[in-house]
Amino acid sequence: MCDINHLQKMYRTHTCGELRIKNVGETVTLAGWVQRVRNLGAVTFIDLRDRYGITQLALDDKTPTALREIATTLGREFVVQITGKVVERSAKNAKIPTGEVEIQLVDIQILNSAETPPFTIEDQSDGGEELRAKYRYLDLRRNPLRQALELRHHVAQETRKFLDNQGFMEIETPFLIKSTPEGARDFVVPSRVHNGEFYALPQSPQTFKQLLMVAGYDRYFQIVRCFRDEDLRADRQPEFTQIDCEMAFVEREDILSTFGDLMRHLFKHVLNVEFGDFPRMTYADAMRDYGCDKPDIRFDMKINEITTLMQGKNFAVADGAQYIGGICAKGCAAYTRKQLDELTEWVKRPQIGATGLMYIRIGDEGIKSSVDKFYTPEELQKIAAVLGAQKGDLILILAGTKKQTLSALCELRLEMGNRLELRPRGTFAPLWVIDFPLLEWSDEDQRFYAMHHPFTAPQPEDLQLFMQDKQEGLENVRANAYDFVMNGVELGGGSIRIHDSKIQQQMFKVLGFSKDEAEYKFGFLLNAFKYGAPPHGGIAFGFDRLCAMFGGHDSIRDYIAFPKNNAGKDVMIDSPSRIDEGQLKELGIKVTAETK
Amino acid sequence: MCDINHLQKMYRTHTCGELRIKNVGETVTLAGWVQRVRNLGAVTFIDLRDRYGITQLALDDKTPTALREIATTLGREFVVQITGKVVERSAKNAKIPTGEVEIQLVDIQILNSAETPPFTIEDQSDGGEELRAKYRYLDLRRNPLRQALELRHHVAQETRKFLDNQGFMEIETPFLIKSTPEGARDFVVPSRVHNGEFYALPQSPQTFKQLLMVAGYDRYFQIVRCFRDEDLRADRQPEFTQIDCEMAFVEREDILSTFGDLMRHLFKHVLNVEFGDFPRMTYADAMRDYGCDKPDIRFDMKINEITTLMQGKNFAVADGAQYIGGICAKGCAAYTRKQLDELTEWVKRPQIGATGLMYIRIGDEGIKSSVDKFYTPEELQKIAAVLGAQKGDLILILAGTKKQTLSALCELRLEMGNRLELRPRGTFAPLWVIDFPLLEWSDEDQRFYAMHHPFTAPQPEDLQLFMQDKQEGLENVRANAYDFVMNGVELGGGSIRIHDSKIQQQMFKVLGFSKDEAEYKFGFLLNAFKYGAPPHGGIAFGFDRLCAMFGGHDSIRDYIAFPKNNAGKDVMIDSPSRIDEGQLKELGIKVTAETK
Repeated sequence: MCDINHLQKMYRTHTCGELRIKNVGETVTLAGWVQRVRNLGAVTFIDLRDRYGITQLALDDKTPTALREIATTLGREFVVQITGKVVERSAKNAKIPTGEVEIQLVDIQILNSAETPPFTIEDQSDGGEELRAKYRYLDLRRNPLRQALELRHHVAQETRKFLDNQGFMEIETPFLIKSTPEGARDFVVPSRVHNGEFYALPQSPQTFKQLLMVAGYDRYFQIVRCFRDEDLRADRQPEFTQIDCEMAFVEREDILSTFGDLMRHLFKHVLNVEFGDFPRMTYADAMRDYGCDKPDIRFDMKINEITTLMQGKNFAVADGAQYIGGICAKGCAAYTRKQLDELTEWVKRPQIGATGLMYIRIGDEGIKSSVDKFYTPEELQKIAAVLGAQKGDLILILAGTKKQTLSALCELRLEMGNRLELRPRGTFAPLWVIDFPLLEWSDEDQRFYAMHHPFTAPQPEDLQLFMQDKQEGLENVRANAYDFVMNGVELGGGSIRIHDSKIQQQMFKVLGFSKDEAEYKFGFLLNAFKYGAPPHGGIAFGFDRLCAMFGGHDSIRDYIAFPKNNAGKDVMIDSPSRIDEGQLKELGIKVTAETK
Repeated sequence: MCDINHLQKMYRTHTCGELRIKNVGETVTLAGWVQRVRNLGAVTFIDLRDRYGITQLALDDKTPTALREIATTLGREFVVQITGKVVERSAKNAKIPTGEVEIQLVDIQILNSAETPPFTIEDQSDGGEELRAKYRYLDLRRNPLRQALELRHHVAQETRKFLDNQGFMEIETPFLIKSTPEGARDFVVPSRVHNGEFYALPQSPQTFKQLLMVAGYDRYFQIVRCFRDEDLRADRQPEFTQIDCEMAFVEREDILSTFGDLMRHLFKHVLNVEFGDFPRMTYADAMRDYGCDKPDIRFDMKINEITTLMQGKNFAVADGAQYIGGICAKGCAAYTRKQLDELTEWVKRPQIGATGLMYIRIGDEGIKSSVDKFYTPEELQKIAAVLGAQKGDLILILAGTKKQTLSALCELRLEMGNRLELRPRGTFAPLWVIDFPLLEWSDEDQRFYAMHHPFTAPQPEDLQLFMQDKQEGLENVRANAYDFVMNGVELGGGSIRIHDSKIQQQMFKVLGFSKDEAEYKFGFLLNAFKYGAPPHGGIAFGFDRLCAMFGGHDSIRDYIAFPKNNAGKDVMIDSPSRIDEGQLKELGIKVTAETK
């Protein structure tokens, strides 16, 4: 609770969340919004609300008539200033911190009236999402949003406190930078002074933070807005915030230790949860056991490959599959036909993309499956054994290409985790995922792409393999990269960067860049690297998502004061919008296409 | 000094700024840049530099030959890792904190070589401004820039610490907003998803912070980037940072007290300078006594009006002037003819715009002036008395229109302050300037403009005058606005905002807006004000300039890691620059004009 008494002399002596039984007898002045007026005949109660809480005001037949008359004119969300005497309540309310007292009104001033809000300002509002977005300033008055922004404030302060204490310097990098044709699309800004030329908004301060390492700044951080003109998906924002960090003279262990400490600091100071060392998992293990590189390890239910066990039994689906894998849903043997059909439909949705679902149930009547025609009970038992299934369990099996099947199994596992309530809010299972592949082969383009970015260093042990002069085996080179994953969500990621120009040349060669191309795309950074680049590496955390995770929510939108909707629009201010011809002319541009 | 020993296990045990006499005998590992190699024949010294300092490495005939050979290959700015033993120096250097010790080399690894930098990495570099801008990452290695960014980091952390302690919430506002055709030019961002529409980059979060007050967030702050597409001037950046703050349920005194405390906190914790209450000066007094609204009160030399004393003596220059004013330069009676001629040329430069300079000197031979023809010594004495001039002093007088003459006298006063060394670095004279006019009359447009912005509230005492239904006297209505001024520079400014819709309507009427216009320009804010807007007000400080001021420099560019040049260009990354046709096509725009 914030005691603002010493500061705000004029409008209030206390906040609406501050008064307690010890204040009884004091004359106080409060200001805030009318949450509710309850006229009970002989007595009228007004709930007065501000950011800090709610205080009850009471009027009865001893209250001067003039005040009682003003009270009858008050509507929801009126802004008032009141003076009164703190008294002990006869009927106490244990649910709110001020619930032992109320204020006997002595004076009331209406500071501003209010039209009736288009939805209720309650924890559970009656307003739909679109309406609340349009009136975001009213939605922000509701407790859940206020608490979300308070949490965000808190996480930001604790992040800076920790990093400042560790000798990190907060250094602001520019927003008006240069468009680079690699990676996601840039938002661009036409220059009026230099017609025909454009700035770009940064997708991240990546190159600038590397330049700061070259400049000797050794420990850099920033909580910084980034911009990505991506095709819109649910819960993707065109502008987002990241905790951006870089260190020089470090190896991977330094980064994992430093930023593991940051996360432990935040857990402790924001959520009062203590963690020891975070577990680590290689990318290969994560893909094998969880089907993705950001496993939710709050629950087990690992994926097991059963390709060889399933093949060679004249079952075309199995024999034609590159990969067959299953998960064991504990205690689900009693799933009905209807439930299983519904689950089959679920995995066949285009987002999951499986062609069908097989199952084995170990019920009271023994082992049964949807593929009994092809497998003996003994063969099914062997599969069950691999999956650690016991009596009462249900095995769910998918088959197909390896990549797609693992991905579908990952989704199915998470879905079963939800259905079995194995992913409760308020529990956290963080881990580091390490040893990512350095390169991804594109069948379409017949070339390698950098999985992270072209400045990511190979693992020292794989350096020889990377530097040899042939393509074979390059897909096995591991990157010195790492992700911080929690509850199935990637919260952060980074890498040790290349600082040796020979390795950098090899990277460009492997990626198929000509010298000119490399120069054009990354010239100023390559140039900087000629003048004494230290070994360095870094990490960036998605700040919106980190806050949502700490707050126990899936949607980042509640943790952003003024978010855009799924179409990238701010419906409150009506943006983007048309600009006038004069402005366009000054910028030396013309609109050639209009949406709709 | 930052002890990073516990964190960075791999590359170094200590920083280059850390070792002291107490470390003698320890074996340490350092990493950093080669500042200098001094080969004195029998012994070679290497200065190793990192962000934290410089440590001397020593090689002599006891050093293994292999190491001595490596040492001969080292160039300036090579990155090396060394291991060695801390020993006491025979010749100590009291100028640097590590000057009592040096390192006897045991091992040296070249982590990266470096081409010879295009300029020296010294406090006084031999590189010109343009060259250093191009290689900013090398310029940033120099102590003055490192210290500037360290100071900036420090000011930012202390600002947040203070405001967090006072219950302010740091809330991020959007960067992709809506272009408003009022005020300075916006940078705009074409939307790819909504062709033909544009976002705008914020000139300040003004409307959003007011919406946050409507939303009940009561105390908001942000250290935030802002953008202004202005015609470029020296030391103006198209992107700049401000400390942006707003409070609800406050009057002016709350704001001045809270943010006076913030400034006192920063002075104390950044500069170790203590201040009591800051003096206040009305706009009217500032204009009268200093000729501008941001007086440098480190020195006196006030402007005095002498119009009536000078007129009626058949001196056409005086008789034709709307205003005549002078300043008294203490002890300058001995100025030579040449000095006075040079000063006359100075005031006649177009930037100052005076038509001539008159003077009165009170020398050993009595009072003499450039206008002796028109004034008796007694008349000159009267003028001298008004200006408080005594024997040995020089009075400088300008005449013309009131506005221009005051402005020229302001500049002349500052110039004389410089020449007389009355404006020393490291001295600070902060004050609040208050009671600005609410409105400015434009003769050109024959209408009033808001001096601050159309949401600035009138002073309570002037409300009646403002609300009356006639134009007369409106120029006398004072705004409830305030600037924080230091050493002749405006570091911050703000106002109490209008929260009463009747007053807001009157403001729009006075400014000549139709209802539709007001709705179009400020619709969403006006709409928000219908639902219970609390009394509120705020302030914003120019963060770049604040840091430069605290650092004792005039140029903000040294306090920005990657600034733009005076043409709005980043010459290091070569931005703005052309983008490819494909990008333009996706954005639905075409370049119609090209600069040069």
